[in-house]
Amino acid sequence: MPKPPLPQHLDEFLKQANPSVIGTLDPDGAPHTAATWYLWQDGRVLVNMASTRKRLEYLRQDARVSLTVLGGGSWYKQVTLRGRVVEVADDPDLEGIDRLCTHYMGGPYSARDQERVNAWIEVDSWYSWNGGQPWH
Amino acid sequence: MPKPPLPQHLDEFLKQANPSVIGTLDPDGAPHTAATWYLWQDGRVLVNMASTRKRLEYLRQDARVSLTVLGGGSWYKQVTLRGRVVEVADDPDLEGIDRLCTHYMGGPYSARDQERVNAWIEVDSWYSWNGGQPWH
Repeated sequence: MPKPPLPQHLDEFLKQANPSVIGTLDPDGAPHTAATWYLWQDGRVLVNMASTRKRLEYLRQDARVSLTVLGGGSWYKQVTLRGRVVEVADDPDLEGIDRLCTHYMGGPYSARDQERVNAWIEVDSWYSWNGGQPWH
Repeated sequence: MPKPPLPQHLDEFLKQANPSVIGTLDPDGAPHTAATWYLWQDGRVLVNMASTRKRLEYLRQDARVSLTVLGGGSWYKQVTLRGRVVEVADDPDLEGIDRLCTHYMGGPYSARDQERVNAWIEVDSWYSWNGGQPWH
């Protein structure tokens, strides 16, 4: 699989508010997937979780992740980023989740009483498809 | 996480041609994710791959998978099915991939010269969200 940086057209694709699914590992090593908001910024990925989310505990044990981003209208486009969570930080002012929510929904996050956490993903490799062909 | 069977409204949701992402394991245990077509049939999931796909070899080593299905219009709906690939079978007449392609695209698969493989997933547990709330 190619290494970063990504070509410009994929960089631009990733900057859009696309649906995405993050793959992580459970403590027994089983794959776990979940829909997630993400932000693509300077070649790294920001995701945000409630601090009560078990996934957060598991990510501290094994930081490896895989994020598949789907094209909106024609979702057979995909870019998958594989890497590791390199930084986990509390989001006390909800600045991180507000950025994500504004990107996807146009305004700040409605639930103001949650403890949230930002996780930054560093990309080690990636691949992409567009209609059954590599999208490089 | 709840066990099967799924409630009827999720069963009906899964029967639609929704975008989905499958999470599998690489030989080193890292999570791998990829967009995939799926068919929900009698509580099991059919996916289909080119027989050259490395993922197939890895699934024979560790059959655990996680499939996140996204709602089409409002993709913050998700149903995630966790389980194992219990059956892998050649698809010599392309009957499996044609069923998937007809479900998603309305007609048979265009590439007739590929060797394809059907994989059936048995669901051990599942969870669902709808707009940030459990969708049970």
